[in-house]
Amino acid sequence: MTKSLPASFMLSIIRLESQLPTPLYRQIYEALRQAIITRHLDAGVRLPSTRDLAEVLLVSRNTVINAIDQLIAEGYLESRTGSGTFVTSELPEESLSAFVNHTPPEPHPLPKRDLSEHGTRYDWLAQRFSMPRVSPPPSSLAFNVGVPDLRAFPFEQWGQMAARHFRDHPPLAIGSEQGLAGYLPLREAVAEYLRVARGVRCETEQVFITAGTQQSLYMAVRLLCNAGDAAWVENPLYSPVRNVLYAEKISLVPIPVDDEGLDVEAGIHQAPHAKLVYVTPSHQFPTGSTLSLARRMKLLHWAEQAGAWILEDDYDSEFRYSGYPLASLQGLDVHNRVVYMGTFSKVLFPGLRLGYVVAPPDLVKAFVGARAVMGYTLPLEPQAITTQFIREGHFTRHIRRMRKLYAERRDVFMEEAARYLGGLLEFGPSDAGMHVIAWLPKGMDDRQVWEAAARQGLRTPPASTFYVGNTSPRQGLLLGFSPITPDEIRTAMPKLAQAIEEVMTQSADSSSPSR
Amino acid sequence: MTKSLPASFMLSIIRLESQLPTPLYRQIYEALRQAIITRHLDAGVRLPSTRDLAEVLLVSRNTVINAIDQLIAEGYLESRTGSGTFVTSELPEESLSAFVNHTPPEPHPLPKRDLSEHGTRYDWLAQRFSMPRVSPPPSSLAFNVGVPDLRAFPFEQWGQMAARHFRDHPPLAIGSEQGLAGYLPLREAVAEYLRVARGVRCETEQVFITAGTQQSLYMAVRLLCNAGDAAWVENPLYSPVRNVLYAEKISLVPIPVDDEGLDVEAGIHQAPHAKLVYVTPSHQFPTGSTLSLARRMKLLHWAEQAGAWILEDDYDSEFRYSGYPLASLQGLDVHNRVVYMGTFSKVLFPGLRLGYVVAPPDLVKAFVGARAVMGYTLPLEPQAITTQFIREGHFTRHIRRMRKLYAERRDVFMEEAARYLGGLLEFGPSDAGMHVIAWLPKGMDDRQVWEAAARQGLRTPPASTFYVGNTSPRQGLLLGFSPITPDEIRTAMPKLAQAIEEVMTQSADSSSPSR
Repeated sequence: MTKSLPASFMLSIIRLESQLPTPLYRQIYEALRQAIITRHLDAGVRLPSTRDLAEVLLVSRNTVINAIDQLIAEGYLESRTGSGTFVTSELPEESLSAFVNHTPPEPHPLPKRDLSEHGTRYDWLAQRFSMPRVSPPPSSLAFNVGVPDLRAFPFEQWGQMAARHFRDHPPLAIGSEQGLAGYLPLREAVAEYLRVARGVRCETEQVFITAGTQQSLYMAVRLLCNAGDAAWVENPLYSPVRNVLYAEKISLVPIPVDDEGLDVEAGIHQAPHAKLVYVTPSHQFPTGSTLSLARRMKLLHWAEQAGAWILEDDYDSEFRYSGYPLASLQGLDVHNRVVYMGTFSKVLFPGLRLGYVVAPPDLVKAFVGARAVMGYTLPLEPQAITTQFIREGHFTRHIRRMRKLYAERRDVFMEEAARYLGGLLEFGPSDAGMHVIAWLPKGMDDRQVWEAAARQGLRTPPASTFYVGNTSPRQGLLLGFSPITPDEIRTAMPKLAQAIEEVMTQSADSSSPSR
Repeated sequence: MTKSLPASFMLSIIRLESQLPTPLYRQIYEALRQAIITRHLDAGVRLPSTRDLAEVLLVSRNTVINAIDQLIAEGYLESRTGSGTFVTSELPEESLSAFVNHTPPEPHPLPKRDLSEHGTRYDWLAQRFSMPRVSPPPSSLAFNVGVPDLRAFPFEQWGQMAARHFRDHPPLAIGSEQGLAGYLPLREAVAEYLRVARGVRCETEQVFITAGTQQSLYMAVRLLCNAGDAAWVENPLYSPVRNVLYAEKISLVPIPVDDEGLDVEAGIHQAPHAKLVYVTPSHQFPTGSTLSLARRMKLLHWAEQAGAWILEDDYDSEFRYSGYPLASLQGLDVHNRVVYMGTFSKVLFPGLRLGYVVAPPDLVKAFVGARAVMGYTLPLEPQAITTQFIREGHFTRHIRRMRKLYAERRDVFMEEAARYLGGLLEFGPSDAGMHVIAWLPKGMDDRQVWEAAARQGLRTPPASTFYVGNTSPRQGLLLGFSPITPDEIRTAMPKLAQAIEEVMTQSADSSSPSR
């Protein structure tokens, strides 16, 4: 399965120039990195041995090893004991959530062997997913975005509930409780929770249990849009939305976001006949702004007039630390134009992989059909335990506890940020959610900071990668405070400051000689 | 949400003719049943009160009550205490697996409010799912098809493993083990199992964990077929396939099945340029035949020539009671034209909702992309427990135990069938699987037998509903022997004989006067 390259082929990729001031190992590093990013070297490809490489490149073996080691450290290559060095083949799931930011090629990518038109698009997307990334060790929690503190989750209790479930309620009846729309008692519990906590107007039959937001999103887009329809998206944007729209051949219309959230007026101006709007009204991802009431009303009014659908992604609204939470957009909608989505990944744990989507009443049947055909059924037991967790009051207590915990962390985070980064970065709203956005001073490159921070063991997704279209993206970092303790925040913050400083110095160095 | 009908509207549906020999209650019953089947009465609609109905129809209230009671007993209507009588709104998942047998309307169904073209198809399908069915109480296990004996499953042990999992390995790292393709250790375990037990040629990276066959199927069809492509299906057919093909606008080409399985020659004759073949080579569903080696080779040869893809559904191959099992079709394929699908629902338990699909090597990326975009991730813990169950040897032991158990039941079933139904029915192969097909004598209607058997508390899905296209379907019953003990088989068999006798008598009665 693994292609191995002849060393001579590498000459077409790596062209060394000994008269350049850049050291040779750095030239090899840059050339390989570039080839991997542009897919001239495919994921999974095996490199020639360092000995062979050194031979064809006419350099010492140590020079090659230096370059390769750096690329391994940064995650572009991986070494497998006994079998060689490979272009990184697969990345964990989280890679999907952020860094897919390459404008899909139009016209269409070349079809693969007998794949369908959509299949070709999926193939192309997957090539993007496996783009190498700067990746600190998985154990590093600072400053992971959108991730709950799992050390504070009662897993032992959860496991005991699971054991009791299988002992007392083994699933002896086939499919009797698991309808096509999900485990009925969980749908009831979610409907009740959403009515009370989020002001969602819904009956149980409108609630579908999904494997999380991605599934809700795909199902909704597929049901609501034809190929060629236009969809407004927030800019910057929760990136997976983009993949779904690309896969379904929906044309993407990026709409700017400001401190009142999505600029509805701009949307109406740019694409008055759009079919779909993706929006995060409670807590815009990633900037953190809240969609103002005036814009909510305008959006709903326009949607009703235009026959458009609104996908409301209410991904972390449980965590608001000051002021009153605005109820859901769906709750304001009297014309049933809103499809509401939520997830248990933030308030419980991501490995649970459960979320929900609330369909407008007259779309319930279509959702049932989609769920059946697409095979969106889910294991029964995790749904049953989640139901019990809600019904017995653990859910509300856990949210309350985590809200308090995250509020404290947010406070420590903002204090430490002011101490170490004060005046340097401009912070977005921190009154809600699990992360805060920190804008960099003009002229700084957030990818450079991201790479420097990764070398410190920190995760700081660059804001620019969340922008779509031809706008020049604002440079910043997404900094999650939810999974780390105050002490961990205090340890991580000076490292972040150091990484930023490093990049500032480099920028100064590299710009001064040429000016 | 619930529409209620004025009693006068019922006059447009029920037209009584007092001069007919058919009793009035039966006329009302037939008219309502017809209106429900043809969707003149929508699912969820509330009927007028029996008093009001009696008034507008000019009959006694008892006459109306007789008709309504019969329709409730047969599952067309349901009574909700205090709120009236409704057209049955939703059926459990199993309804999907069998009884959707209405030819999709062409041209296209009317679009619903702003739904996409596909959305409209899903909506239409869901209307079909909620077709009322004759439904014995869920507790009734005889003769459920494709269902394991869950009373013999070690749920207590499974639950203890779940408790230990959450205690010892709480999912503290985010997504590190759960890649887009499923839990890596489970993919490894499945690859190993399939290589050894089913002769599947695969590496771990080709294996994707899914929520079962439906999900595998949808993903494959979406990746491999464009709208308008043709697909061969077996006739009779595992019905859900049909829904997927309809939803994706794939044109369905039914190919006859005989005792060597799919008639490949007929397929090549009917649709030489088809893009896809759905096939159950180990144990054709529902007839039980095995695809012969000659046909396997012919099919693979044609697929390679035609650039077609083969979806191999190996749904219950673990249960073969005599002779050597033929290895998978995929294992014979040297051109990577086969997508192989399997499920844990039969060998473990359906509520687990786990299955797998093995992609050809060059389609792996496209599958990864589809899985990411479609949100086909799954809860981690059921995957982890399944892995442990396999790794610790429980899986192989459980299969061996169940194979022995089912073989005994098959023996008892065939003995009892010979005693009570001998000479009356013609049985299909019983050397493998969890059910056997019993063909009825010419002239008998399998739906009538099905209804009569349901009144005896038996499930006997009618074979005719699995046929597609314009062929006149062969009449028969699918009889599952796997979930019931020998004693339960001995109790159920005379009831089945009685139901068949009842229908034979009725047929004789109704045909004799007119001849």
